[in-house]
Amino acid sequence: MLGDQVPRMSGSVARKTVLRCIGCGNTVDLLRERKFRCENCKSLFDVWHDFYPMDASRVATLKSHFNTRTTPRLWNAEPQTRSGVWRFKELIMPDLADEDIVSLGEGIVPIVPAGEHLRDWIGGDIDISLILEGSGPTGSFKDFGGTVMMSVAKAAGVGFVGCASTGDTSAMAAAYAAAAGITCFVLLPEGKVTPVQLMQPGAHGARVITVPGTFDDCMRIVQELVAHHGVYPANSLNPARIEGHQATVFLIAQAMRWKLPDWFAVPVGNGSNCSSIGKGMRLLEQLKFVDATSRILGCQAEAANPLARSWVAVKDRCPGPSRIQGWQEAFQPVKVGETTATAARIGDPVSRHKVMREIDASNGVMQTVAEDQLNEAVFVCAKDGLLVCPQTGIALAGVRHAVERGYIQRGEKVVVVSTATGLKFGDVFESRSMERIERAADTSPSTIARMLKL
Amino acid sequence: MLGDQVPRMSGSVARKTVLRCIGCGNTVDLLRERKFRCENCKSLFDVWHDFYPMDASRVATLKSHFNTRTTPRLWNAEPQTRSGVWRFKELIMPDLADEDIVSLGEGIVPIVPAGEHLRDWIGGDIDISLILEGSGPTGSFKDFGGTVMMSVAKAAGVGFVGCASTGDTSAMAAAYAAAAGITCFVLLPEGKVTPVQLMQPGAHGARVITVPGTFDDCMRIVQELVAHHGVYPANSLNPARIEGHQATVFLIAQAMRWKLPDWFAVPVGNGSNCSSIGKGMRLLEQLKFVDATSRILGCQAEAANPLARSWVAVKDRCPGPSRIQGWQEAFQPVKVGETTATAARIGDPVSRHKVMREIDASNGVMQTVAEDQLNEAVFVCAKDGLLVCPQTGIALAGVRHAVERGYIQRGEKVVVVSTATGLKFGDVFESRSMERIERAADTSPSTIARMLKL
Repeated sequence: MLGDQVPRMSGSVARKTVLRCIGCGNTVDLLRERKFRCENCKSLFDVWHDFYPMDASRVATLKSHFNTRTTPRLWNAEPQTRSGVWRFKELIMPDLADEDIVSLGEGIVPIVPAGEHLRDWIGGDIDISLILEGSGPTGSFKDFGGTVMMSVAKAAGVGFVGCASTGDTSAMAAAYAAAAGITCFVLLPEGKVTPVQLMQPGAHGARVITVPGTFDDCMRIVQELVAHHGVYPANSLNPARIEGHQATVFLIAQAMRWKLPDWFAVPVGNGSNCSSIGKGMRLLEQLKFVDATSRILGCQAEAANPLARSWVAVKDRCPGPSRIQGWQEAFQPVKVGETTATAARIGDPVSRHKVMREIDASNGVMQTVAEDQLNEAVFVCAKDGLLVCPQTGIALAGVRHAVERGYIQRGEKVVVVSTATGLKFGDVFESRSMERIERAADTSPSTIARMLKL
Repeated sequence: MLGDQVPRMSGSVARKTVLRCIGCGNTVDLLRERKFRCENCKSLFDVWHDFYPMDASRVATLKSHFNTRTTPRLWNAEPQTRSGVWRFKELIMPDLADEDIVSLGEGIVPIVPAGEHLRDWIGGDIDISLILEGSGPTGSFKDFGGTVMMSVAKAAGVGFVGCASTGDTSAMAAAYAAAAGITCFVLLPEGKVTPVQLMQPGAHGARVITVPGTFDDCMRIVQELVAHHGVYPANSLNPARIEGHQATVFLIAQAMRWKLPDWFAVPVGNGSNCSSIGKGMRLLEQLKFVDATSRILGCQAEAANPLARSWVAVKDRCPGPSRIQGWQEAFQPVKVGETTATAARIGDPVSRHKVMREIDASNGVMQTVAEDQLNEAVFVCAKDGLLVCPQTGIALAGVRHAVERGYIQRGEKVVVVSTATGLKFGDVFESRSMERIERAADTSPSTIARMLKL
């Protein structure tokens, strides 16, 4: 077996792991922090690993390990072999004890080339692949961050987690809390999540509370409960989430033999995807796993586009602190409108400063897409055999715009993050597919043969 | 990269691939056959690869290839690296041209140990893992067989496929037909599939016809349309399906470093899982990939248990032709009752002779499980963070019975095939979880803090 020939890792790859304020650089303890806002400047934290310098041979050994772990191992094996997130443990949470890892087999997801209908619809003769992060235990990309967040919570002795959610976060939080043996509550905007999404957290034993408001109201409540009532947050406010979402970048880099595509295209709701992809790319470049990084295409629906809208004010400025500051000044929360992409129906994204940082650092682009375009994208995907969520539709329509507008050039490679399975959004498809159902009058083969003109 | 050190395969591993009648041994052409019943004796066909003898070094080379392909490859790479089914192409369909492969990234699925609640509920101090085959493009295990069936259809120049379905097969057939550019129709029993399952084939552009009868009526119609109207079947009547489902065995063998567990536990509907697991195990043993095979635990719900019911008549006989013949004589189709496990609501399984062959050959066991037990199993899984379908519940409850009855012994290793995601069966969970949803009166943090007693 190839796996047996790889030398074992010796020693840790990092001196320590702490939380570091993205505003003022203040550091706090990973396992003791409970407020998740810097005391000095109220900014969010990043997880920061103080990595030892890695020489080329250390990097090569790590790459070999990551490849070996792609072959799953059953019974008494390390969790690194059963999770596409923990496969990269040394880059994500190097010193967490294996017994604290709370895994449901997340990150074992298909990476597929776009089908013909989608390629034609997007146009521009570009190379598109999708990473189907909805093919996982709770049906959305939230699993990637959830496994890390809940593992840290377990290591920290947390007994009670909570979150605001447009649907996917609550399913993740409830499932991983169940697996960890931690009590969980979720706040959902009343009437604004799909029945399947409302069902999931309850099935996993979480307390489900609906709030007569928007996701932004739920998020505001959670931030208050974290600040004043000791609630441990499962939202991306909790930077351990972002560490896990970096696996998107690591999986793609591994699939490209440690290169990165020209673009990552992502839908932007609360901002965890942009934040984590940017952070993961910078890490791979810093440690010399890759020579060059990707540009991030952040995409929002018309109904909830506070970041794409404000980006327009600074898009022609040079990257750097003054562009970020200009963006922060131009940013205004928006009152969200109606959209089938309910999971991205967020007018005041909690991770907006991280999104701005990563779009800027990657020389990225933000796009607003029309409601009809994001819905059409989903149906185009279905014609190729893929059932994706409307948020994936935002990213796909965003790629189409970016091609039309010349941001994405002929021959470039684009990886689209498909954030959830279409199975969670059955109602989107039902409206169009139900009307086409034909009813046979009886059970005789000749009746069916006639209907099919055989 | 380790992958680059593996020698390339040279030449094919098989002399030819044909269809062979399981009754009389008559062989027909894989790509030309359209009736899928033996002309002589009306039995079903198996796919039969006439493998060259393989020495130990050839087997070791193949194992190395299979391990190398677990690392996905993007852009211009062979499909073997992006599919957990085609990873094992040499064992499944060795001479199919790569350009005929119709893949949606199937078989990239988590294999996870059972959680604490499930282990406690099953009892008996046994080792249980689940292969989550619902974590795939269409949300069920049908993808495993679908990719092979549709690839063979493409290679054979088929323009029109059809199937009867309890839900999962139709989603698979429609998705893979879309990916292949082949026209598709599906027959579904009116009122007996979930809304999500009814939505899927329509979303992928198939003609969806509901029939005022049971799945068995739909299956009977399809068999007539195949026999007399040239329809190419997507049901497991089509033995190419079974070839793909063998990947369940290959994935588990690979994860166990080319050993097999003591038991595979599967729900039995039309019989494709039992058929393929048995066939796959015999192949691994014949080619000396493994030294010993597993016993198959075939599980059925009370509402549709024709195989488990008739097995009781022969269970104390010795394995062999006389036991199989006795079972065939004892077999009676049953009129199906109501069950939440709608995908296994089949009273006259088309692959029953294959099921009998494989249960017999593996010294297997059949179990009937009560409706309340299969539903309870699903909720127990949810407490561990896994959302599985009611058919998985049949297999889990079957394991519990088999432990109680002494078939499965302390310390034995059991792999349960989880056949679909619970997301397709939201209504099963909704009934219990919706009543527990709490509504907040307003959007103030203090209201929520009071509800949570913070």
